[in-house]
Amino acid sequence: MTNSVSPLQAARAAYQPKLPKVLAESGPNVVAAEGAPTTSVADNESIQRLFPKSYGLPVVTFQAGVGKATQALSVGVILSGGQAPGGHNVIAGLYDGLKKISPNSNLYGFLGGPSGLTENQYVKFDDAFINAYRNTGGFDIIGSGRTKLEKEEQFATVVQNCKALNITGLVVIGGDDSNTNACMLAEYCAKNNTGIKVIGCPKTIDGDLKNEWIEASFGFDTASKVYSELIGNIERDANSAKKYWHFIKLMGRSASHIALECALQTHPNIALISEEVEAKKMTLREIVEEIATAVKKRADAKKDFGIVLVPEGLIEFIPEMKTMIAELNDLLADPYFNGLNDDDDKHQFLNKKMGAGSAQAFNTLPGGIQRQLMMDRDPHGNVQVSRIETEKLLIDLVGDLLNEWKAKGHYKGKFSGQNHFFGYEGRCAAPSNFDADYCFSLGYTAAALLGAGKTGYLSSIRNLTKTADQWVAGGIPLTMMMNIERRHGKEKAVIKKALVELDGKPFLAFAEKRAAWATEDAFLYPGPIQYFGPASVCDRPTETILLERS
Amino acid sequence: MTNSVSPLQAARAAYQPKLPKVLAESGPNVVAAEGAPTTSVADNESIQRLFPKSYGLPVVTFQAGVGKATQALSVGVILSGGQAPGGHNVIAGLYDGLKKISPNSNLYGFLGGPSGLTENQYVKFDDAFINAYRNTGGFDIIGSGRTKLEKEEQFATVVQNCKALNITGLVVIGGDDSNTNACMLAEYCAKNNTGIKVIGCPKTIDGDLKNEWIEASFGFDTASKVYSELIGNIERDANSAKKYWHFIKLMGRSASHIALECALQTHPNIALISEEVEAKKMTLREIVEEIATAVKKRADAKKDFGIVLVPEGLIEFIPEMKTMIAELNDLLADPYFNGLNDDDDKHQFLNKKMGAGSAQAFNTLPGGIQRQLMMDRDPHGNVQVSRIETEKLLIDLVGDLLNEWKAKGHYKGKFSGQNHFFGYEGRCAAPSNFDADYCFSLGYTAAALLGAGKTGYLSSIRNLTKTADQWVAGGIPLTMMMNIERRHGKEKAVIKKALVELDGKPFLAFAEKRAAWATEDAFLYPGPIQYFGPASVCDRPTETILLERS
Repeated sequence: MTNSVSPLQAARAAYQPKLPKVLAESGPNVVAAEGAPTTSVADNESIQRLFPKSYGLPVVTFQAGVGKATQALSVGVILSGGQAPGGHNVIAGLYDGLKKISPNSNLYGFLGGPSGLTENQYVKFDDAFINAYRNTGGFDIIGSGRTKLEKEEQFATVVQNCKALNITGLVVIGGDDSNTNACMLAEYCAKNNTGIKVIGCPKTIDGDLKNEWIEASFGFDTASKVYSELIGNIERDANSAKKYWHFIKLMGRSASHIALECALQTHPNIALISEEVEAKKMTLREIVEEIATAVKKRADAKKDFGIVLVPEGLIEFIPEMKTMIAELNDLLADPYFNGLNDDDDKHQFLNKKMGAGSAQAFNTLPGGIQRQLMMDRDPHGNVQVSRIETEKLLIDLVGDLLNEWKAKGHYKGKFSGQNHFFGYEGRCAAPSNFDADYCFSLGYTAAALLGAGKTGYLSSIRNLTKTADQWVAGGIPLTMMMNIERRHGKEKAVIKKALVELDGKPFLAFAEKRAAWATEDAFLYPGPIQYFGPASVCDRPTETILLERS
Repeated sequence: MTNSVSPLQAARAAYQPKLPKVLAESGPNVVAAEGAPTTSVADNESIQRLFPKSYGLPVVTFQAGVGKATQALSVGVILSGGQAPGGHNVIAGLYDGLKKISPNSNLYGFLGGPSGLTENQYVKFDDAFINAYRNTGGFDIIGSGRTKLEKEEQFATVVQNCKALNITGLVVIGGDDSNTNACMLAEYCAKNNTGIKVIGCPKTIDGDLKNEWIEASFGFDTASKVYSELIGNIERDANSAKKYWHFIKLMGRSASHIALECALQTHPNIALISEEVEAKKMTLREIVEEIATAVKKRADAKKDFGIVLVPEGLIEFIPEMKTMIAELNDLLADPYFNGLNDDDDKHQFLNKKMGAGSAQAFNTLPGGIQRQLMMDRDPHGNVQVSRIETEKLLIDLVGDLLNEWKAKGHYKGKFSGQNHFFGYEGRCAAPSNFDADYCFSLGYTAAALLGAGKTGYLSSIRNLTKTADQWVAGGIPLTMMMNIERRHGKEKAVIKKALVELDGKPFLAFAEKRAAWATEDAFLYPGPIQYFGPASVCDRPTETILLERS
């Protein structure tokens, strides 16, 4: 590190993350109490066939007493996928846990994500190295990556590299896909009697890796609080200047947990939830009408300002758009299309070849976005949906509709939009007290699971709405969270992604309030994450988990 | 208020802002010690002619002892211009100061900025009203506005409205323009023996209202710390993911203090400073080359990521662009141009009529931005320079140049840009301890100045790098900061705007480090503003003021 550290980092380095009582008092070598054999969330037979060694394992809960960990362990760890606040603390907890089992334990960090394991790029941690990263944000300690570790030949290389270092345990810190692959690796290692155990840790700011047993993925708490800080500041600005509608897009392509959590923290006038759009089969026109109606109502009350939250993945949840994008992907691959030089010709070709619904959906989009969809494609030749600036698109379309209404005399306000997109702003924030404690406990528990000789488990900390001493540590079999889904045209065993449930308590709490929030000024200003103040401020978990678990 | 408050707001409501020792111990009715008569920063004769009553007043410093404030005061206050963190605390300090002079004092808040004064829209404050806004961000307590109060007939209306409420003092919380107009109002009131005194308070997140006597405008501390929090988080993400160059535009059209302060707080790879671009007469091409060169150097060291800070006003400081924009403004007013329907025809017309340098500058811009400049105009028919997404423009042009270099084999990296713009995120943040104390002290001092019968002064708190008890409270004559400038084609007496000084200590500190920052990873992660922690974290002022005043 060539970095000096900021005053906050210096102060924060001294923070000692809290552990569940049993681990705090007795260390990681405790009794691994086992429940009954488990089943998968669905497709039990298929999962069992695919994971004969890992299927049906019992849930593990750590209890006071002396466990089986008698010798030093050599363990490897990787960070996989997108950054999430607290990753460094998982590694610190793992390191401390392993060293507590034996001062002779070793922890290796494989560099740049899963590819570090296959390419044998690693560092060995020591106290000074780990101490420099305690309670900090980012994944820069060893980097991360998106290489998928899912093929037998990759697994063989991993085993070979681990054996060279006498590594008998691997910890994969990742989201649903990375943990699915961790389970495949665990199964491979068990089947081939490699002696290598694999433990996962649930990471993702998106909040979509959770279920009955995993109450939250780490990073969601911190990231959603950073976004809520910014949304609150913008709300206060809107309410002061009284002249702009701010459209704020929030990271999270496949689930809207972040948008929902931020809505519960900040009370915006409108928050779109992708899962609801899909369930109600809403058209883009209907979404635009819904927003424009709220703008009109507030304008009638002399309030030409407001806040709209937009989940990043919205477009792909609008049925007509989803169909249009699928058709577009096919047509863009047509050699005839690619031979055309003129934008008009391209446009006419698409118009002619698409279904009527898709053609209309395509033509709803402003010219600039149409051009972007025709031109910019990802390495697989697909439309770059993530490049669509949905927040600007909505401002544009809402403005057009309001102009129509104005011409008819239905609307007399002034509409001026400002767009924002928050994602990178929150993924590497220094972890909140909650995430600092939760992550450290997850890592420490991973050490305990390895000490107990477990494999194919996700490190688990439960009872998260209580204070840390009441948290329950253990492990959940990865197969228990799996089902069969169609991915890229093939059936695949995967950890089931948690989308926003429209009959869940967080959504219902939002749905109950949103009509009032739309017209009133009910804005709530959470302010920045605090690390040192009163517990009411510093230790409050997310609204989502409070509603789900209290 | 229909709002409930967040846990942080609830905790923060109890914070008692700190005052300079003399005011903390003796209240606002202290001795107003006067220095020698003053002069303006330039153009003394003109300023004296324009402000015969207000010119040459002495600097006032409050000292222990009993002052002249013997009776209750009725005072009006307005918030003028853009939001800045701490405005509510100025009003709270003013209210507390006036009530300390006499419990029978009254404070009226005029609504929606200067227009509230002419339209006689106001509220009367009481304890409950003020208490709900202590230590909060935003200007929503009474709103703000941008109406210019500068004509005699406006002043006459203001006086009439004040007299109806027995108001004998007005406090204008605003930036350089608003305080220039406050001085005109003070002069008008004095000349016409209205008995109404006018005091200003220095507000603006841009940091451009400062001089020998005014060490900082309020809001700059908080806003620049919010932006630095976000920049630090993005730096950590860049350093973790190692695949993006983030181009971050920061609010501040006329001065680059924010970009400079954020650079000193976060050590980005590149920070552009508009004042330097202008002084060096840099072309857009040169700026793009400078960035691309840094990208290439880092790519050579296998670092395809980095951070670039871009001040909002950059384009207008590039000489060729400034000329181009001026020419474009004239040509867009041409009826022949406006009669053209076809984009190509419009483009050809502009190309033919502009000077060669401007035509080339215009054609440097991507098509989308050219179209935007031709189409979108402000209510005066001018090009909307602020609509140019400079951060995207730079990503686009740097990418093009790197592709040229790649074709020649000079560059082998991967360049992928992400754009951000931070402005509204910081203007209404809850004030830092510094801004909470500073603003409260400014308001309290404004009450003291009115109690001492002063008019035509800017409330002043000095010695700001020391702890609050060592701060020096007083008043600076508004005319002292004035000079004559050309504005909209006319000579006008105005408060001199403080741009970044290229021989000043903050810029020199940055200039000394930036070559190292460009190639090394010297990122610094300040984290979010803390209100409750150790003083090293919570009470550190900006790097700018530390460098300027230590």
